[in-house]
Formats: sequence, C-alpha cells, structure tokens
Amino acid sequence: MTTTDPSSTTPPPDRRPGGRTARTRAKVLDAVIAQLGEHGFDGLTTDTVAARAGVHRTTVYRRWGDVGGLLADVLDAAGDDDWIPPDTGSLEGDLCGLNEEIQTALTAQPPVMMALIASSFRSEPAADAQQRLWEDRYTRCGIIIDRAVKRGELPPGTNARQLLVTATAPVYHQLVLLRTPVDPELPSRAARTAALAASAGAFTEG
Amino acid sequence: MTTTDPSSTTPPPDRRPGGRTARTRAKVLDAVIAQLGEHGFDGLTTDTVAARAGVHRTTVYRRWGDVGGLLADVLDAAGDDDWIPPDTGSLEGDLCGLNEEIQTALTAQPPVMMALIASSFRSEPAADAQQRLWEDRYTRCGIIIDRAVKRGELPPGTNARQLLVTATAPVYHQLVLLRTPVDPELPSRAARTAALAASAGAFTEG
Repeated sequence: MTTTDPSSTTPPPDRRPGGRTARTRAKVLDAVIAQLGEHGFDGLTTDTVAARAGVHRTTVYRRWGDVGGLLADVLDAAGDDDWIPPDTGSLEGDLCGLNEEIQTALTAQPPVMMALIASSFRSEPAADAQQRLWEDRYTRCGIIIDRAVKRGELPPGTNARQLLVTATAPVYHQLVLLRTPVDPELPSRAARTAALAASAGAFTEG
Repeated sequence: MTTTDPSSTTPPPDRRPGGRTARTRAKVLDAVIAQLGEHGFDGLTTDTVAARAGVHRTTVYRRWGDVGGLLADVLDAAGDDDWIPPDTGSLEGDLCGLNEEIQTALTAQPPVMMALIASSFRSEPAADAQQRLWEDRYTRCGIIIDRAVKRGELPPGTNARQLLVTATAPVYHQLVLLRTPVDPELPSRAARTAALAASAGAFTEG
C-alpha cells in the first residue's frame, strides 16, 4: 500500500508486507480457523474472534465487517499459497494423490474444511470465496492433464476441468453430502475410474 | 396406529391413514416446504409453519418438536413414495435420465432441494433424514445395474452403489458445491463417463 525509504529509521509502516497489519491479519485469521473448527459457524462472531486473536473488536469490525468478511478472507488467504498438485509420473497417480489430499482435508480434526463448506451455505461472501478457491485449485491442477497429454496417456484436447471434477466429485459427494464413513479405497478408485474414462476419450469434444 | 371397526359410526380415529392426522401432517409439511423454498432455513420456525398451515402451534410443537423434526419429516415423507428410476433400455440412458432428474430438482425454483441440503448443515435430524433419503434412492437405483448386467452391458459383480455415486456425484458437485452455471450437457456427460468406466470393469472387485 505504501512504499518505504530503506534509509528511514521510522517504525515499519502499517501495511508493509510482514508488518503489523500482516501480523494482525494472521492472528485474526488463525483465530477464525480455530474458533470455526471448535465451535462451527454458530460459534463465530467478530467479538469472539477479536478476543481470541487479542485484538480490538473495532479492528476486526473495521477491516472485515462481519463474519462473512472474516470467512471470505480465510478462504482467500488459503488460496494465496504456493500449493502445486502432486507429480507422481502418471495421470492416475496424480489424481489419486489429489484425492488423498482432499479426503485428508475433509476428514481432518478439528473439521475446519467441513466447517468452511458448511459456512458457504450461510454466508454469500464465504460462498463466493470458497468457489474462487476451488476454481483456483482446479486451474492449478490443469498441469496434471498437460503432463498426461505430453506423456501420451491422454488424447490432446482433453477437457481438464471436466476430468478433474469427475475425478474428485465422488470424494466430496461421499464425505460432504452422503456423509458415509471414510473409505480408504475411495481416492484411488475415483482416480482410476476418471483416468480410465479419460484415456478412452470421455473428455474430448465430439 | 389404531384399527377401526367398519361398522362403527363414530368419527374417523385421529391416526387413520388419510384421516385428520394425515391431513394435518400434509398441511404442515407443505407449509415447511413452501416456507423453506421462499425464506430458507433462517425463515423456518415452528410458529411460522403453524401459521402457514393454519394449525395450532402446540400441534406442531407436540408432534414435531422443532425445526429439525419438521425437516426430518419432510425428507422422510419424500422417501415414502413410489419413485422408480428411469428405464430407457440402456445403462447410459438410465443414468442420464437419473442425472436429468437430479439436475432438475437441484435447479428448481423455489429452490426446495437446495434449501433442504443447506439445512442438513444446520440440523442433525435433517442431515440424518437427508442421508436416509439418498441411501434409499441409491438402493432403488440398484435395478439399473441389475438390468445392465442382464443385458450384458456390465460385468457381473459390478458394485451398484459405487457406479451410481460416480455417475451422479459430478452433478451434485457442480451445482451444490462449485455452484457453476447449469450445464445442460452435464447429466449425459457424467452418465456416459460412468457407463464407460463401468463397462471397462472399474466397479468390479479385484
């Protein structure tokens, strides 16, 4: 936001990366995640977050507005990382690794990801941020399909997003909606099924 | 609950099928569905439902307890029907018809099914009833796989539930979680993909 003169001896400006604002944000977002994991959406208020983070409630109110703003920032911050998809040397291996990561996140304790998904049914800003995060992840995973095409495992013109949604949807469906007990075989089975269909040309146009 | 003497001239007992209790239940559940479709979970209280149904609030309170009880009964009533899955003559056609039904329900206005799914993140009884309903539907759809095995479209021993979850999961994932715009090709594409993988043996053990 502001630029600094490196020769200056004044304290770091408020919005310098890694400065006080960034530290406050980190404390507040950590507090949101902890509160959400322990008490769910219903236990989340700007006051409880402020108290947990040890910051003034007016700071939270002015910067994030309300719970929806806090949740959206948690999700946007989650997407602001250097995550890259698994690179195992095969399409099925990459998809299986991806599904394992999803299953691990969806079954983690405390259930932060499940609580964030549940929150997306309560708050439009959270829903929008959740969708941005998912779309960003699917976009980054496009490299899995690029590599598979280069290796000759997939026909050129394979629709990456359709293949990735097909590979991952059963994991989300079973754990988020059907809420069946964890099936350790599910990530690999869903990966194998999608890879099989994709190599048969299920995701190429025409 | 009670049995009746057909020669009796007394008024129908309260719990006779189609009697006063059944009519009250129908009015109350219709009111829950209408209220939920228009105002979502947050607009749902036993009082608003009672007023909308034109019944005493104590009737609603005594019979259903709370909003969770009302939602669970709506979902249980939805499963108490004679629904049968599509029978088109082919595995892919049956799965496509099933996905078309799901997509239609998930995009209906007012958005009753979406509101019921959202409610399952707020109420344990609603979540339990929603899962019972889905499991019942998947069980009924087993006949799709039985017919396909008999026609020689699928290997014997194909796991019906795994195939059905794979076929339907992308429709739920796109519409309920990713909330992408409706894709008219999605039901048939997901059906084709699952059928392709299934005929290649993706859902047989070993």
